[in-house]
Amino acid sequence: MPNFDDFQQANASFASSFQDGDKPMPPARKALVITCMDARIHPEKALGVAIGDIHVVRNAGGRAVDAVRSVTISQQLLGTEEIYVIHHTDCGMLTFSSDQLRGIVKERLGHEDHTHYHEFSDLEASVRDDVKLLKESALVRPGTAIRGGIYDVTTGKVAWLQ
Amino acid sequence: MPNFDDFQQANASFASSFQDGDKPMPPARKALVITCMDARIHPEKALGVAIGDIHVVRNAGGRAVDAVRSVTISQQLLGTEEIYVIHHTDCGMLTFSSDQLRGIVKERLGHEDHTHYHEFSDLEASVRDDVKLLKESALVRPGTAIRGGIYDVTTGKVAWLQ
Repeated sequence: MPNFDDFQQANASFASSFQDGDKPMPPARKALVITCMDARIHPEKALGVAIGDIHVVRNAGGRAVDAVRSVTISQQLLGTEEIYVIHHTDCGMLTFSSDQLRGIVKERLGHEDHTHYHEFSDLEASVRDDVKLLKESALVRPGTAIRGGIYDVTTGKVAWLQ
Repeated sequence: MPNFDDFQQANASFASSFQDGDKPMPPARKALVITCMDARIHPEKALGVAIGDIHVVRNAGGRAVDAVRSVTISQQLLGTEEIYVIHHTDCGMLTFSSDQLRGIVKERLGHEDHTHYHEFSDLEASVRDDVKLLKESALVRPGTAIRGGIYDVTTGKVAWLQ
């Protein structure tokens, strides 16, 4: 694994100056951020949060549909009260259809694939859809404050939706 | 939303000195990390990776079962080749059962809940189970190098499993 030695070395250096070993399990800021797995997003840096501050859920696209299990645990067991859904410019989810990807899986891996990959064609609509999904979910606390935003990978700026 | 102003201010400051606006969509290090949403884990810091380097998927526990859709997109469309599954000490997933949480949901939200919350009682076994799930998944490229590890929230150190 080409990156393993680098990760191991970097982690040893990180641990050697680690000073946050006393933080409790519940997030200090009582907030949860849902965002994309994209390599260009470092959510803690982009929002200025410290170790122990917020829960971060990430998946392809930052889709809420994959996040409900985590949100329920975060709210009901660990006391988070606010949710931020942040998608981003130049997202891979804008570049393919589930049909196309199922075709690629069939061709390369030799399996029939029935996955819905939850791609989208309109970035702002995808954020609004995910905020709505969470607001309407039977497993999300009614009245939870949920805010959507779009991270610009070229500027590092989050544009918050109204 | 109590954190909103802080996040907005911190992001403005982050963006004002942002210099990584030219990174391409595919992760430079061709690696994907799956880890927990826990607030005490800042994966990029802990592994010493830069903006644009790796995909990061996070959910409650860092469970692979929620990550397969993202792994498929990451491998088939964005060229990642290695996967690291990192669970951690003092994980919330060690502290409850799905039955208990369904009871809490029923009591507080008034809904019957049939979610499997994917909690675990043995930390090392949960990592090995998730590595196995990925290795055996029809949607993960055969032969993918997958390594499991446990992050110690008190020391910042990752112990890699053999």
